[in-house]
Amino acid sequence: MTVETLATHRTQGGTLRYCRHDSASTGTPMKFSIWVPDGEGPFPYLVWLSGLTCTEDNFTTKAGAYAWAARHGVAIVAPDTSPRGEGVADDAAYDLGQGAGFYVNATEEPWIPHFNMYSYVTKDLLEAVDGAFPLDPARRGIFGHSMGGHGALTIALRNPQLFKSVSAFSPIVSPLNCPWGDKALTAYLGADRAAWRAHDACVLIEDGFGESFDEILVDQGLADSFLESQLKPQLLEEAGAEARLKVTVRRQEGYDHSYFFIASFIGDHIDWHAARL
Amino acid sequence: MTVETLATHRTQGGTLRYCRHDSASTGTPMKFSIWVPDGEGPFPYLVWLSGLTCTEDNFTTKAGAYAWAARHGVAIVAPDTSPRGEGVADDAAYDLGQGAGFYVNATEEPWIPHFNMYSYVTKDLLEAVDGAFPLDPARRGIFGHSMGGHGALTIALRNPQLFKSVSAFSPIVSPLNCPWGDKALTAYLGADRAAWRAHDACVLIEDGFGESFDEILVDQGLADSFLESQLKPQLLEEAGAEARLKVTVRRQEGYDHSYFFIASFIGDHIDWHAARL
Repeated sequence: MTVETLATHRTQGGTLRYCRHDSASTGTPMKFSIWVPDGEGPFPYLVWLSGLTCTEDNFTTKAGAYAWAARHGVAIVAPDTSPRGEGVADDAAYDLGQGAGFYVNATEEPWIPHFNMYSYVTKDLLEAVDGAFPLDPARRGIFGHSMGGHGALTIALRNPQLFKSVSAFSPIVSPLNCPWGDKALTAYLGADRAAWRAHDACVLIEDGFGESFDEILVDQGLADSFLESQLKPQLLEEAGAEARLKVTVRRQEGYDHSYFFIASFIGDHIDWHAARL
Repeated sequence: MTVETLATHRTQGGTLRYCRHDSASTGTPMKFSIWVPDGEGPFPYLVWLSGLTCTEDNFTTKAGAYAWAARHGVAIVAPDTSPRGEGVADDAAYDLGQGAGFYVNATEEPWIPHFNMYSYVTKDLLEAVDGAFPLDPARRGIFGHSMGGHGALTIALRNPQLFKSVSAFSPIVSPLNCPWGDKALTAYLGADRAAWRAHDACVLIEDGFGESFDEILVDQGLADSFLESQLKPQLLEEAGAEARLKVTVRRQEGYDHSYFFIASFIGDHIDWHAARL
């Protein structure tokens, strides 16, 4: 799989690249950023999944992550949140279509054949970066924000052979129980909610997934305007308690849903992952 | 002077505000961001001046500065780079007009009466933030990037009573000796280059300004595409050597002109200022 480098920046004692590659899963070119420390590697690495409306650029420019990654010698990959471009279906709303792939494989029109972000992240992206950069696939973690927190949790729970650690910022913990989930999964997976269960972190934990993880770390701002209606971290805590899986939700007084929140605690998450990779 | 808060975000254990106020100097509303640590203060603070095309947002979202500011209990103010809006002159080029105020008071049409960024920064901005936030005017430093590095250097050199410390990232050190300076100062100050001397850091140092500063710190990326044509840090070193003013230019291998460069060394600059405030 050929990875094309679109731009390169030296930062925090390592190299940041914006890249593009052709994805068989989405049938489109896909973009991601990757920061790699100096040296030969192979380096442990983290995959960051972004939230609604984001591209590969939001985390890359706003999270302030690479200063912390450099301390631990951990690489970070941040893909775009959906296929894009002409010929790719879209919706006028910010929470559906391009920029809102929800990390599932769509089974409904008009989202087939391109909206296969679950396969993209778990297969094409990993193969591309493992092949092109000095990364250690055996020491790989995943984290994300909001829709990307949902993606990180569900993908890690279903693929413990791929990811040794998982954390999230203000994740959608249960698409079965929030308006964003209702709308997106109805569109991508159809009205039969049974098909959604494989993409609901709480259901997965209730069904026994996740036992390979010693802990799941979540940070949640208490001034987040989506907390009550969309995010509901208590559902993840309840599922964890039921399944005897340690779920740590840190509720942060005064913090909102923005990258200013993420930047405040990204160092803690990278420390936490590095200890596990 | 009334300061209106447009948005508030908790970040890095302090509060970030986007603000607007009316400036007598520019005759327009002006925007800035300000991050203030928790606590009563008064806090030492830094003024950050941004480069061409920037608003108050670029530094605020991309520099990763507040993690370091929080360690030292230092507030940071980041104003917009020019007056803006309808009725304010502009130019189609990125390096003149709105977004490119060059921190001078214009004497030429069409830039009078609004393009008075020198007075705005040294008077209106400081009065506004000193009046509205728990800041200590006696412990104030200034820094900036590119055009804003030029602004920081020239404003500090001419106003040592206002600023105790000054540093810069990839600054325009001598508008008299580069195309950006030629173009902007011809437009704003007229063709008589004698009028430009008050806005050229190298000339000011040669003329004896700056003796109150123990050191001027500059970081410069060696992969910066503007290094040879526009920035020329060696001119600042030569002026400093001549005037026996310590000018430290740290040349950073592989780094470019972007905020990825700034974010890599912003912590060093905040440490350096904090030690002097």
